[in-house]
Amino acid sequence: VSKDKGGARRFATVPVALGDRSYPIHIGSGLLGWLGGEIARHTKATRAAVVTVPAVGRRYAGRLLPSLREAGLETGQIAVRDGDSHKNLREAARLYDALLDFRADRATVVVALGGGTVGDLAGFAAATFLRGLPFVQIPTTLLAMVDASVGGKVGVNLPRGKNLVGAFYQPRLVGIDIDTLASLPVRERAAGLAEVIKAGLLWDAAFFEQLEGNAENVLRLKPEVLLPTIERACAIKAEIVAEDERESGRRMLLNLGHTLAHAIESLSRYRGILHGEAVAIGMLFAARRSEALGLCPPGVAGRVERLLGRLGLPTDLPPYPRRAYLSALRVDKKRRDARIQFVALRAVGRAETVPLTPAEILPAGE
Amino acid sequence: VSKDKGGARRFATVPVALGDRSYPIHIGSGLLGWLGGEIARHTKATRAAVVTVPAVGRRYAGRLLPSLREAGLETGQIAVRDGDSHKNLREAARLYDALLDFRADRATVVVALGGGTVGDLAGFAAATFLRGLPFVQIPTTLLAMVDASVGGKVGVNLPRGKNLVGAFYQPRLVGIDIDTLASLPVRERAAGLAEVIKAGLLWDAAFFEQLEGNAENVLRLKPEVLLPTIERACAIKAEIVAEDERESGRRMLLNLGHTLAHAIESLSRYRGILHGEAVAIGMLFAARRSEALGLCPPGVAGRVERLLGRLGLPTDLPPYPRRAYLSALRVDKKRRDARIQFVALRAVGRAETVPLTPAEILPAGE
Repeated sequence: VSKDKGGARRFATVPVALGDRSYPIHIGSGLLGWLGGEIARHTKATRAAVVTVPAVGRRYAGRLLPSLREAGLETGQIAVRDGDSHKNLREAARLYDALLDFRADRATVVVALGGGTVGDLAGFAAATFLRGLPFVQIPTTLLAMVDASVGGKVGVNLPRGKNLVGAFYQPRLVGIDIDTLASLPVRERAAGLAEVIKAGLLWDAAFFEQLEGNAENVLRLKPEVLLPTIERACAIKAEIVAEDERESGRRMLLNLGHTLAHAIESLSRYRGILHGEAVAIGMLFAARRSEALGLCPPGVAGRVERLLGRLGLPTDLPPYPRRAYLSALRVDKKRRDARIQFVALRAVGRAETVPLTPAEILPAGE
Repeated sequence: VSKDKGGARRFATVPVALGDRSYPIHIGSGLLGWLGGEIARHTKATRAAVVTVPAVGRRYAGRLLPSLREAGLETGQIAVRDGDSHKNLREAARLYDALLDFRADRATVVVALGGGTVGDLAGFAAATFLRGLPFVQIPTTLLAMVDASVGGKVGVNLPRGKNLVGAFYQPRLVGIDIDTLASLPVRERAAGLAEVIKAGLLWDAAFFEQLEGNAENVLRLKPEVLLPTIERACAIKAEIVAEDERESGRRMLLNLGHTLAHAIESLSRYRGILHGEAVAIGMLFAARRSEALGLCPPGVAGRVERLLGRLGLPTDLPPYPRRAYLSALRVDKKRRDARIQFVALRAVGRAETVPLTPAEILPAGE
């Protein structure tokens, strides 16, 4: 671990322990210009197809590509369309086509450079092209750094629902260059922080308390807090995923706030609200419901609300009718009262799943 | 192992040893009406989506579905279009849609009932829908029984090439009901036998000799030879795949005859020739080349030629110009002399890969 003059750490590595699919997450400043050699070493690839959206490519490909070439890799850059509405099978087919143009073979590493959407789409293509190419993720948004880069979930949307097609496909390496956050709008930084707060809230009370102490400084990208915060958020997710790679048990806890978030996103047709903002609302809702159900002591929801509010994150349910929420919560349309594994809080730093019907999650009059 | 009055075995199980992805291949007569309980036991599923083409569904779904329902599974039948030309992303999207209509969840098993095309397509959908549903294969062609049912290769074609998109995704169970072969045209039985012969030729001299003794009886579906032949062919492939699931080494030997076969299929635009027929031609070609290169003793190619000929399988390269073959063999269009891992024979029952250029595989004047 190197430190700069001010004593702040400049580099950290979080191991994700998944047996023969284990991989490291490198976090640091100036990483884009250094990752080429690491990618070559971890993948043994001879060529790298860097998949990115135009705006991110213009900004950062010029740092990454020379580093790959210096490491002896032949490079190509593939642009995909920006936005979740293009994370679909059609865009995947275009990406396959571009990989064929690049003459990608099994010694070609697919490098996703961008936010979660690019990572999901490029990761799905990597998982399926020629039955699987080596894959590296370089997330450039805070949300993708702390969420999408751990756990290997890749995939695309179908017209009838988000992320319905995909795979669990682990990258060989994740490289997080915190410098890329400088170009990220504050609103998106805050939305990413919502997932960081979620990690503390469900797993690590001390980390949640730290965030209560320094959240604004993370938002302002103060180096002395930014790197350790990303590191701890990744480590929490890595710890949970290592126990339950395919989401059959404990990994479900990571869905804290997401039951309501998905309903909100669906009702708003994914417009006007960022995923992290919907998670903020859902997380506070889960804390309030947990208190109301007597699952956790009073006061937890208040702490969550104050922290989210300080970051300018939304906290109130958008005013759709209750019946609209209930309908959005019903995953099994045939059985209206089917129970959902709702993630509730027992305390700050401790969550558990509780099977609740939509009407129990959202009782009349709340 | 049960035997009928004539002493012929009625049932066999071949284990495919892949660690926590291990699965059994059950082979027998009358299996369709018995598999439901096995599928329930191996998958813990509560619902089964049986994917098939209309012709196969009409013939066999009526045996399989009641058995699934007796085992407590809710069943649905999904028809996909027949033929390799429909093994593509568009048909996969239609299949996802049908799975949504069936309200498939992670407790839904996808059962592929049909030939290799249905298995590849349904397997790809199973591998990717909701990031992976349990999958069961019930192959109804000889080729699919001995080839596609072992090894977990699933996938679809792209307009620019076959099987370019897919996954290694192991079924939980394979059920081979040899009764379904009765409706298979003799030409397709012979094409399937080409892959059986290939297995003996590359791995098991004694098995090859047995086939020299009884191939016509296998073609006529004589029960006393049919079941042990399918069993041994599956066991050989299972043995090789268990050593090398992701085809980085020894599994490449299974490509014996396939370098030329793919060129022939591509040049004929996949019309007028069955895959097994192209493999027959390619396998004999490989035997002759191996003799000419001094890699195996004279006489091997003659034995291969006689055995294939007795089954009415084609043995001569279709008369496309040499330059057309060379072009079809060049996988790397940029480097004309790039070497291909050509599977050569050292003897009956023993193969090895030899790196050869297209011009060395197909020298002028041959």
